[in-house]
Amino acid sequence: MEKYAPLNPPERILLGPGPSNVDDSVMKALSKPVVGHLDPVFLAIMEEVQEMLRHVFMTKNHLTIPVSGTGSAGMEAALVNAIEEGDHVLVCISGVFGQRMSDIVKRCGGVLKTVETQWGTPIDPEQVRSALAEFPASVVAIVHAETSTGVLQPLEDISRIVHERDALLLVDTVTSLGGAPLKIDEWEIDICYSGTQKCLSCPPGLAPITFGQRAIDKLNRRSSPVQSWYLDMTMVQKYWGPDRVYHHTAPISMIYALREALRLVVEEGLAARWERHRVHHNSLVKGLETMGLKLLVDPAYRTPMLNSVVIPPGVDDTAVRKRLLEEYNTEIGSGLGPLKGKIWRIGLMGHSCTEENVNHILSALKSLI
Amino acid sequence: MEKYAPLNPPERILLGPGPSNVDDSVMKALSKPVVGHLDPVFLAIMEEVQEMLRHVFMTKNHLTIPVSGTGSAGMEAALVNAIEEGDHVLVCISGVFGQRMSDIVKRCGGVLKTVETQWGTPIDPEQVRSALAEFPASVVAIVHAETSTGVLQPLEDISRIVHERDALLLVDTVTSLGGAPLKIDEWEIDICYSGTQKCLSCPPGLAPITFGQRAIDKLNRRSSPVQSWYLDMTMVQKYWGPDRVYHHTAPISMIYALREALRLVVEEGLAARWERHRVHHNSLVKGLETMGLKLLVDPAYRTPMLNSVVIPPGVDDTAVRKRLLEEYNTEIGSGLGPLKGKIWRIGLMGHSCTEENVNHILSALKSLI
Repeated sequence: MEKYAPLNPPERILLGPGPSNVDDSVMKALSKPVVGHLDPVFLAIMEEVQEMLRHVFMTKNHLTIPVSGTGSAGMEAALVNAIEEGDHVLVCISGVFGQRMSDIVKRCGGVLKTVETQWGTPIDPEQVRSALAEFPASVVAIVHAETSTGVLQPLEDISRIVHERDALLLVDTVTSLGGAPLKIDEWEIDICYSGTQKCLSCPPGLAPITFGQRAIDKLNRRSSPVQSWYLDMTMVQKYWGPDRVYHHTAPISMIYALREALRLVVEEGLAARWERHRVHHNSLVKGLETMGLKLLVDPAYRTPMLNSVVIPPGVDDTAVRKRLLEEYNTEIGSGLGPLKGKIWRIGLMGHSCTEENVNHILSALKSLI
Repeated sequence: MEKYAPLNPPERILLGPGPSNVDDSVMKALSKPVVGHLDPVFLAIMEEVQEMLRHVFMTKNHLTIPVSGTGSAGMEAALVNAIEEGDHVLVCISGVFGQRMSDIVKRCGGVLKTVETQWGTPIDPEQVRSALAEFPASVVAIVHAETSTGVLQPLEDISRIVHERDALLLVDTVTSLGGAPLKIDEWEIDICYSGTQKCLSCPPGLAPITFGQRAIDKLNRRSSPVQSWYLDMTMVQKYWGPDRVYHHTAPISMIYALREALRLVVEEGLAARWERHRVHHNSLVKGLETMGLKLLVDPAYRTPMLNSVVIPPGVDDTAVRKRLLEEYNTEIGSGLGPLKGKIWRIGLMGHSCTEENVNHILSALKSLI
């Protein structure tokens, strides 16, 4: 068999929709010696990860853990645990990730209804109210920061409407956690999942998730097993709980990295971190507008960590991104679905969210378009 | 919030059922700079990982990839893709992992039949023949190296019987891949999954999987979608194939580590690696027997990388393992299920499989029992 060279990936400036750049101390944690998944040392690390996850989710939920898969595994974990065959589920769609949730709901045997809005705009709470008036949903699923559009969805009014109807609110915060205000307990979010590779700036591979008491009650009332064995929280929680019952081998090294990434978030402070994302987002927007570029989303609904920029007429989407990567060692994201070729997605997430990176991408774009 | 100390796990000697110790060069690869999941640099790494996985699986199967989850996610990926509601599935149970497969088959809506054998003994091909004579299975699932018992299951006769009945053979090789002969194409295994943290000596978090043409044909003939979105190979393969269609964000750093772990396997050579596992297994067994200890499994069916040792009467299982960990910095495994308290499981896997470790564990046990 041919010889393979040692691995030597470049140090990219990651300004796309994730992964974001990773702090050196997280990389150091990642490469610490592997111990067993039932080693007392590791069990103590699991407890610390849970404590810090509760802190960043702003929740007291006991069942708060990292799922052993990427953000999409978190989405699937949230939905398969929340839904039994025949359950009515309302999914709010304003981009790719709402669509993905609908797809999974159908695979769970859920009775699906959707409310939709134009990509680049948020869901109106009144849409949810009308839909629930005629559809007995037990779960309402929505995306907080829609990574495909750059919209930050207000959740508080929707949460009230959902709970008036005694449904559970299930929220995707893959892109928002650690980069914009997100208050699980105060906003009464029942189930929430995220990813590690966006504003937490840990490599991709884990999906933080949290279940409130109403969600656990529904889980305990199930008449059928969760359709995924791997993601079955009734079993997974026994490993993360005091009994430490072996379920599957935890991804040890990734959990080391997450612990360090969370430690950095705690050290910075949530409010300071949100403010950092807000400030650099504002500078980026100002710079883009000075260049004559337009953003897709109305200022009231822009998510700070992901900026969707309308590609000006006559500019070659692919060529610009290729030159950014090759000449500036910098990644930005393309549009997805109906926005393909129409927008760029510039991420300022976690460790990548710096004044230096704002200046860098503005100056690179100036020279390329 | 309280301050957390920097992460500082001890350097354990890992001689349990996995994870095994990881080579420094794999750790270095793990902590290389993260690039995007659609970066041309990463796409080239994916190709190399696939090539090397085909080499270690001894297969030409195009659909050979690492699933983005641990070995149990590999099990679930294999079964949910192979099985549609109403499919007849025969599962061979000789330990914990056969039981786990049965559980997942039921969650997939499969019509389940099992053949069982006493834990510590292999399945007899005639059991499979009799079962298939009266049960129209489309899939037969079996474990190659049963990690809960230390049995290495011969597969060639069973493969012939399964294919005479036109069923697919689905094999768990989580513990055997890279440590004992395993020949996907020669043995006509249709679907096979493994894990990274055993004889490949990569940290836990990925599950190599391979699908042969008969399995892909069945997948393409499905009348219902795969019940897991995250593990749906009809979609995942489009990201790993020439189209590079985004499905979920790959666990970049773990794939770096797997590439290096596989490179080390290729460099050593499969035959040399199997021989290393065989030789050190023999030394360990000889040493244990000299001490008067007995192995659970008949010599003809012992799997070299996991040795199940009968705990002598009067010896305190937990106390010995605790002292091994605390005084010798060494992990071995306990028994599972009906074997709890009755056996220890001593792993000699991948990077942990050395003469030095054999001598170390023998001398430690001598002083403790």
